[in-house]
Amino acid sequence: MIGDTIAAISTPPGEGGIGIVRISGPEAIDITNKIFKPAKNKRWYKQNYKLNYGYIHDPDNSQIIDEVLVGIMRAPFSYTKEDVIEINCHGGMLPLRKTLELVLKKGARLAEPGEFTKRAFLNGRLDLIQAESIIDIIRANTEDSMRLAIGQLSGGLSKKINEIQQQLLLIISIIEANIDFPEDDVDQYNLIEIKQRVELLEQEINNLLDYAETGRIYREGLRTVIIGKPNVGKSSLLNVLSKVNRAIVTNIPGTTRDLIEEVINIGGVPIKIIDTAGIRETEDIIEKIGVQKTKESIQNADLVILVFDAQVGFDFIDNQIVELVKHKKGIKVINKIDVIKNKNEFNTKQKVRNLLPHWPLIDISALEEKGIDKLKNEIVSIITGGKVIPQDNIMISNIRHKNQLVKAVNYLKDVQNGILQGIAIDVLAIDIRGAWEAVGEITGTAVNENIIDKIFSEFCIGK
Amino acid sequence: MIGDTIAAISTPPGEGGIGIVRISGPEAIDITNKIFKPAKNKRWYKQNYKLNYGYIHDPDNSQIIDEVLVGIMRAPFSYTKEDVIEINCHGGMLPLRKTLELVLKKGARLAEPGEFTKRAFLNGRLDLIQAESIIDIIRANTEDSMRLAIGQLSGGLSKKINEIQQQLLLIISIIEANIDFPEDDVDQYNLIEIKQRVELLEQEINNLLDYAETGRIYREGLRTVIIGKPNVGKSSLLNVLSKVNRAIVTNIPGTTRDLIEEVINIGGVPIKIIDTAGIRETEDIIEKIGVQKTKESIQNADLVILVFDAQVGFDFIDNQIVELVKHKKGIKVINKIDVIKNKNEFNTKQKVRNLLPHWPLIDISALEEKGIDKLKNEIVSIITGGKVIPQDNIMISNIRHKNQLVKAVNYLKDVQNGILQGIAIDVLAIDIRGAWEAVGEITGTAVNENIIDKIFSEFCIGK
Repeated sequence: MIGDTIAAISTPPGEGGIGIVRISGPEAIDITNKIFKPAKNKRWYKQNYKLNYGYIHDPDNSQIIDEVLVGIMRAPFSYTKEDVIEINCHGGMLPLRKTLELVLKKGARLAEPGEFTKRAFLNGRLDLIQAESIIDIIRANTEDSMRLAIGQLSGGLSKKINEIQQQLLLIISIIEANIDFPEDDVDQYNLIEIKQRVELLEQEINNLLDYAETGRIYREGLRTVIIGKPNVGKSSLLNVLSKVNRAIVTNIPGTTRDLIEEVINIGGVPIKIIDTAGIRETEDIIEKIGVQKTKESIQNADLVILVFDAQVGFDFIDNQIVELVKHKKGIKVINKIDVIKNKNEFNTKQKVRNLLPHWPLIDISALEEKGIDKLKNEIVSIITGGKVIPQDNIMISNIRHKNQLVKAVNYLKDVQNGILQGIAIDVLAIDIRGAWEAVGEITGTAVNENIIDKIFSEFCIGK
Repeated sequence: MIGDTIAAISTPPGEGGIGIVRISGPEAIDITNKIFKPAKNKRWYKQNYKLNYGYIHDPDNSQIIDEVLVGIMRAPFSYTKEDVIEINCHGGMLPLRKTLELVLKKGARLAEPGEFTKRAFLNGRLDLIQAESIIDIIRANTEDSMRLAIGQLSGGLSKKINEIQQQLLLIISIIEANIDFPEDDVDQYNLIEIKQRVELLEQEINNLLDYAETGRIYREGLRTVIIGKPNVGKSSLLNVLSKVNRAIVTNIPGTTRDLIEEVINIGGVPIKIIDTAGIRETEDIIEKIGVQKTKESIQNADLVILVFDAQVGFDFIDNQIVELVKHKKGIKVINKIDVIKNKNEFNTKQKVRNLLPHWPLIDISALEEKGIDKLKNEIVSIITGGKVIPQDNIMISNIRHKNQLVKAVNYLKDVQNGILQGIAIDVLAIDIRGAWEAVGEITGTAVNENIIDKIFSEFCIGK
């Protein structure tokens, strides 16, 4: 696999000022040299980290394809640690496609999604955490999510995980010292040391896991469902929640609003509104209430925002909705508090207070934008439990990493039980190795090809 | 205006492997230096045409924004002839926006659409033809359109236009020699020479104009309407026409089919199907026939493809359609020739033959893909009249250029009439100067600011 030369268009599709064809591999320079006419230096490929002005042409018919800048980064000082060429074209799809076609014709292979980054990993420039953080940077929805991803790219989390792995290795070596001298009685002191070390390590991993749910939400967004009877103001609430943040993320012309349509930013936490379209398009909750899709949305939600109308009495539909959401984390919201201040409102409020009593209750007026800040604070605190991204940005955010740590903790628990039950020390060693492997799969020191393929297949083409 | 430093995201919006923030102006390097931490060379800005690896950080809070490559092209050897910095980020919108925000905070101004290219023009790196060709390259739909645009960027057409301007200048100088010696009789020999030169020049411009319509179609696409009664096979025809070409233009994964949805490539000519959606969505021509929008589509079309069904008789609806399209260029198509071979078909064919007799008639089967090549050849030849892009790629394709040349020809005609009518030679000089200015507006040697603003406002942001 590695050894051939890959190429792809690395900029997003569409019309732009600049578009890039990226090539990586042993033949990257040779291939480019066949189709690139530099304006000045014929031996452009002798230099490193240089930009070269010139033209891409088809050598078979002398047709000029585009005016370009060619960047050259020679192995091993490149993104992939291979020879890398980046051809900067005028940003139209046709010149980019034609240039890519020429590159493929001259011997490159079309890169798979994420294949450049995969090579960076396989060639040892990045570990798996860092490689995964790159896609997190690209997909980040808030500055905090981005900061977390950048922190992981910088290697903070990798260092932490490596330390844990080192400690597991140390425990293995202590055990092996015992195994190597089987005739001696098992050294009681060593067993106590092993137990202590395992306990400490378990605690350390649990400290990381404590933040994993918060980290996941910063990475993936908080899946949120806004639900309630028709005309209680679900759309208005969504609009008022979106407003401030949209202003922040789209105050630069030329950025596409659609891209962030369904993710809003509340206190740095990306809030992913599920089925926004549905909420916007139809207020007819009665029709939708039996629908499987609504149930699934609620099932997958991290948070439910249940909206009531202060003016409208509590009825059987509300009961149906409550049945659907009662097992979830949620916030009760009474909307339209601006409109009336009469007995009806009081009655509704009393009923809502008694409902799902473990859910906080917030009064708002979506129209007058009252109570919105309070609601936002509640959204953030109910989910993060007051947890924020640590100063050092060391935080588990990827569910894959979390699962591996949980696996490691289970192995460590087995070790502790084993020691209590007097299980043979060479059997304990197997569990410690299991923990070591589980942790190693996070950074990629121990990992099989299928997992690697799966991780990089989620990347975009050209990355 | 020029003198300040501009910045924009130069890659298309969306998710990609690489995204670029481009900065141009006297402060481009200073601004970048404030937010860029190079991994190695602190004095990275001393070099030219170099790529520098490092990090973008916010100096106000030391937060790292992204891992980047920074390209530097110092004035005057850059796209704009100013100092240009290109910051290559990981291709997510958030790192790009944050990087751009920092650049703006440190003193740059957000660039208007096309402003980089506008500066390239104002600073004399490109003339107006070349600047306009850049947007044509980006928007090219077929290889031939792209070749034409690349040819214009290379300066072929500019040279031709400059020659015409030079010859007008020569005529002006001959006239001025006469004006300078007003006491002499007007030199009869000179007047003949002027007349001959003007005639030759008019011929030369007309030669260019002869190809302008073909050029416009290569640049803008042939606006085509497919029309006919319900169920005659308009959608099938569109599909079969699109099929081959879509295969060509989208055989590389990762390119977006939607972008070219409505432009199909027939023999290198981009065919822009107007109201494709309408054709696909509704077959109900009776409902649509009175609709203003349909009439407008026909009005704006370069070509009408009028489809009949061999199985179905000719009726009043066909007559209504014929009334709508009779003043246009068109092709009559009888579809479903595969299905039946009976008297009905014969009758329909006879009627269609007599209809719009100046339109060619083609038998096809969209289903069996019969007659499609013949139809394609007809589409190309009816429009280009057999004209192809000349070997030297010197061809007028931009309607603005065409209009200026028509203006110039009118001035030259006035001169010739003036000579015949014995009009004073200093009056003739005014017309020649008019022609000179009209031609000069093409390359931009004579052009006012409004026209320039209009041209560049059609560009995308970041170009």
